[in-house]
Amino acid sequence: MREFKIKLKVAWHETDAANVVHFSNYFKYFERAELDFYDYLGFNYAKTLKNSNLWFPRVEAHCRYLSPCEFNDDIEVMMSLAELKEKSIKYNMKVFNVTTQKVSAEGYITVVAVDKKIGRAVPLPADFVQAISKYFSQ
Amino acid sequence: MREFKIKLKVAWHETDAANVVHFSNYFKYFERAELDFYDYLGFNYAKTLKNSNLWFPRVEAHCRYLSPCEFNDDIEVMMSLAELKEKSIKYNMKVFNVTTQKVSAEGYITVVAVDKKIGRAVPLPADFVQAISKYFSQ
Amino acid sequence: MREFKIKLKVAWHETDAANVVHFSNYFKYFERAELDFYDYLGFNYAKTLKNSNLWFPRVEAHCRYLSPCEFNDDIEVMMSLAELKEKSIKYNMKVFNVTTQKVSAEGYITVVAVDKKIGRAVPLPADFVQAISKYFSQ
Amino acid sequence: MREFKIKLKVAWHETDAANVVHFSNYFKYFERAELDFYDYLGFNYAKTLKNSNLWFPRVEAHCRYLSPCEFNDDIEVMMSLAELKEKSIKYNMKVFNVTTQKVSAEGYITVVAVDKKIGRAVPLPADFVQAISKYFSQ
Repeated sequence: MREFKIKLKVAWHETDAANVVHFSNYFKYFERAELDFYDYLGFNYAKTLKNSNLWFPRVEAHCRYLSPCEFNDDIEVMMSLAELKEKSIKYNMKVFNVTTQKVSAEGYITVVAVDKKIGRAVPLPADFVQAISKYFSQ
Repeated sequence: MREFKIKLKVAWHETDAANVVHFSNYFKYFERAELDFYDYLGFNYAKTLKNSNLWFPRVEAHCRYLSPCEFNDDIEVMMSLAELKEKSIKYNMKVFNVTTQKVSAEGYITVVAVDKKIGRAVPLPADFVQAISKYFSQ
Repeated sequence: MREFKIKLKVAWHETDAANVVHFSNYFKYFERAELDFYDYLGFNYAKTLKNSNLWFPRVEAHCRYLSPCEFNDDIEVMMSLAELKEKSIKYNMKVFNVTTQKVSAEGYITVVAVDKKIGRAVPLPADFVQAISKYFSQ
Repeated sequence: MREFKIKLKVAWHETDAANVVHFSNYFKYFERAELDFYDYLGFNYAKTLKNSNLWFPRVEAHCRYLSPCEFNDDIEVMMSLAELKEKSIKYNMKVFNVTTQKVSAEGYITVVAVDKKIGRAVPLPADFVQAISKYFSQ
């Protein structure tokens, strides 16, 4: 299946006293992949958040840590579509450490659209779903 | 079952532009509960990391987000023992938002002991396992 | 002069691969002192941000690092008033490492009130200035 | 004078509930510029930290905030040499917001070399000083 991939370099401030990337920072890598993907699709996340009545919280996040990343390691985050439903999208995520040539982590995040006023999940915008669906089906 | 509980207050820098705690920061709350628990048990995590050949990485982390936390909300992190094996411990975590009186998040982390030299999981220190086991069985 | 003081314990995720608190995190300690101070004064920062047309950005921040903090060190952040003007407040900050009994850092932050619509600094709310002034003059 | 410049894009997790980049995160941008610069010079920071008896802490950091950055803004961090002494380097930093075409922040960081064993500042490595000096004098 098609993937969306970004390249990053581990920042010093992302490490902890065990000399490796702190486990919480992998979720920031996942987020970077997700939001860069929306950019790539031409979907203006920032503007949508400001001007519509929707926001797009993550309702679930998971990660298994397989091999550590250290400062300045080159990494790739690969994102694929795990599930696309009326009200939620689940993306699988993989962090590949290019420097060590090992898979560093695997996980997923699940995203929904929430109506700011009623505070509940609503159907994802149709054009958004279509663009995501089209990308991953190619 | 017995729990270990800590109280926190949401920091401003933990929020994001959606006006809620960023999803990655819940894992920092989980960590705070875990490491405060070791303090409570009298287990010197920092010293053990420095002086022994072991470190204690998280090999898995998971969170479901149920209700947001905002700046200055009072929260409680409740930790319970999900599984204690020879080489791994799994803690269930719950974040309760005292301000809104709602469960904000539920998740878990799994911790192992790794030998720094061989880079592989080894049995957890016996006194560590005993202390954890004793706490949660009371 | 009177100070406002908070107690913190260094979190694991605040350290970096040099085994000490990352230099950027001291500014989070400064912020914690500032915002806890407003709480102490009974000034509802979160509510004011939401309901008024003001926000209170930092326009300047400075820190000199004197002695490192490590994971789990007990620290105190001492805040004092350096300058109180019509449109800005400058707080001096000191981080004392209780564990090592050394001053870890000294710095300051300067805060202004900005009108959200015109995007420019305006006079600080009178009751806010009064409460701050009263606290530090005692 | 010659500058060293990096390009970044504001990450979602770098914002706070005021909808702008949290003030502490500018110091992470400064760090990124500094460490990317060492990469550019061919100086292996990570390896030096591991294999030598030196580390390179920041002993001072300063920032003035002029105009906010929001999520996904394109920014440039420009670094120039303010002072190069036997035992310390001071870099001036400027964050330019390409999206708004405004200077977002100006500041500096001062870096020293510390002998890990004696815990005191020592002369910076000669080849390091030379490479930095050469870059900025061109």
